[in-house]
Amino acid sequence: MTEKKVAVVLSGCGVYDGAEIHESVLTLLALNRQGAVYQCFAPDIDQHHVIDHLNGQEMDEHRNVLVESARIARGDIKPLSEFDAGEFDAIMFPGGFGAAKNLSSFAFEGPDCRVNEDVSSAVKAMAEKRKPIGALCITPAVIARVLDGARVTIGQDKDTAAAIEAMGGHHEQTRHGQVTVDEKLNLVTSPCYMLEASIIEIAEDASNMVTEVLRRAG
Amino acid sequence: MTEKKVAVVLSGCGVYDGAEIHESVLTLLALNRQGAVYQCFAPDIDQHHVIDHLNGQEMDEHRNVLVESARIARGDIKPLSEFDAGEFDAIMFPGGFGAAKNLSSFAFEGPDCRVNEDVSSAVKAMAEKRKPIGALCITPAVIARVLDGARVTIGQDKDTAAAIEAMGGHHEQTRHGQVTVDEKLNLVTSPCYMLEASIIEIAEDASNMVTEVLRRAG
Repeated sequence: MTEKKVAVVLSGCGVYDGAEIHESVLTLLALNRQGAVYQCFAPDIDQHHVIDHLNGQEMDEHRNVLVESARIARGDIKPLSEFDAGEFDAIMFPGGFGAAKNLSSFAFEGPDCRVNEDVSSAVKAMAEKRKPIGALCITPAVIARVLDGARVTIGQDKDTAAAIEAMGGHHEQTRHGQVTVDEKLNLVTSPCYMLEASIIEIAEDASNMVTEVLRRAG
Repeated sequence: MTEKKVAVVLSGCGVYDGAEIHESVLTLLALNRQGAVYQCFAPDIDQHHVIDHLNGQEMDEHRNVLVESARIARGDIKPLSEFDAGEFDAIMFPGGFGAAKNLSSFAFEGPDCRVNEDVSSAVKAMAEKRKPIGALCITPAVIARVLDGARVTIGQDKDTAAAIEAMGGHHEQTRHGQVTVDEKLNLVTSPCYMLEASIIEIAEDASNMVTEVLRRAG
């Protein structure tokens, strides 16, 4: 059996303006532990803004999503424009506000949000090939904007769930340890830090998402 | 039995100019999984420099070690100047170049390096109370500069090992899965990314270090 090859799409480096770091690292760990290899990707675009993670305030700085994501990937990352769905068995999106601020405008425009073209193309290309897609935390809302009628979970948050329904998606309430599977779209989602969580629960949610995606891959 | 309380000292956010992200996250995970609680700290100082993790080049930017470390800690972090050895059962240092560039000048001055005062004070205060200290990757070299005659490992790198000996320390060669224990100083070290490593090996090294430190704590 050959190793399954999974693309992991990051959105910066840090929960408030980029990819959530714990979710990202624990997704990579789960992939390796479950016998898969990964390649990180991120769009080569400016971040929407830079947040001081100590005080929550916006900083007068400009950072690039690909360059900052490279911190999590230890430099081994490619521009998402180079992603080729033919080369991968699955694609995954850890969470963090970067998904709602950089990969899309969901944080600002809710159900009317725009999705970054590279993200949208990658998701659609995988869906067309019936290859599985995994998404954690807030990223299921982004997928629901791209794929019509997606059945996803972001945990329990009523406003986000309503936005997903407004985009034509279906929201399932979940707790830690649960994943929501959309059989038709081959889409696996889990709440992670959209619920109050310890880092142990993040490891479990990420691992459960990875297990279900790999079961469906290849 | 009360939970053991562990201080984790970060040095920024990203392997080339700050704390190594995988080592940091997997140390936090191991602590929670092994029943301990943690509080992150970092010195409130400017980074030595900012490295573009995509191409390895220095960027014309200024970043603060505490503010960037807050990304790994999701905002829950304190200035290292507020660290009180009386409140903690152990202290730990994940690796990354931040230890050798921000916590100390080891990357530039080797065995003649200076160590940040807050780092030096925290290490000495724990050593005086005979409370255990854990250090991963390159950080054992920093500890060896602070504590005389420290027995540590940074894996196999000959130049770093020679620098440790030049500072009056003792270097033990190790492979992944091994920890070096200095019984006298109650100091536990492990190589992590100072050796070629997969993220699985980082999780194991961090977990082994945490196990040995917690066994010695409280």
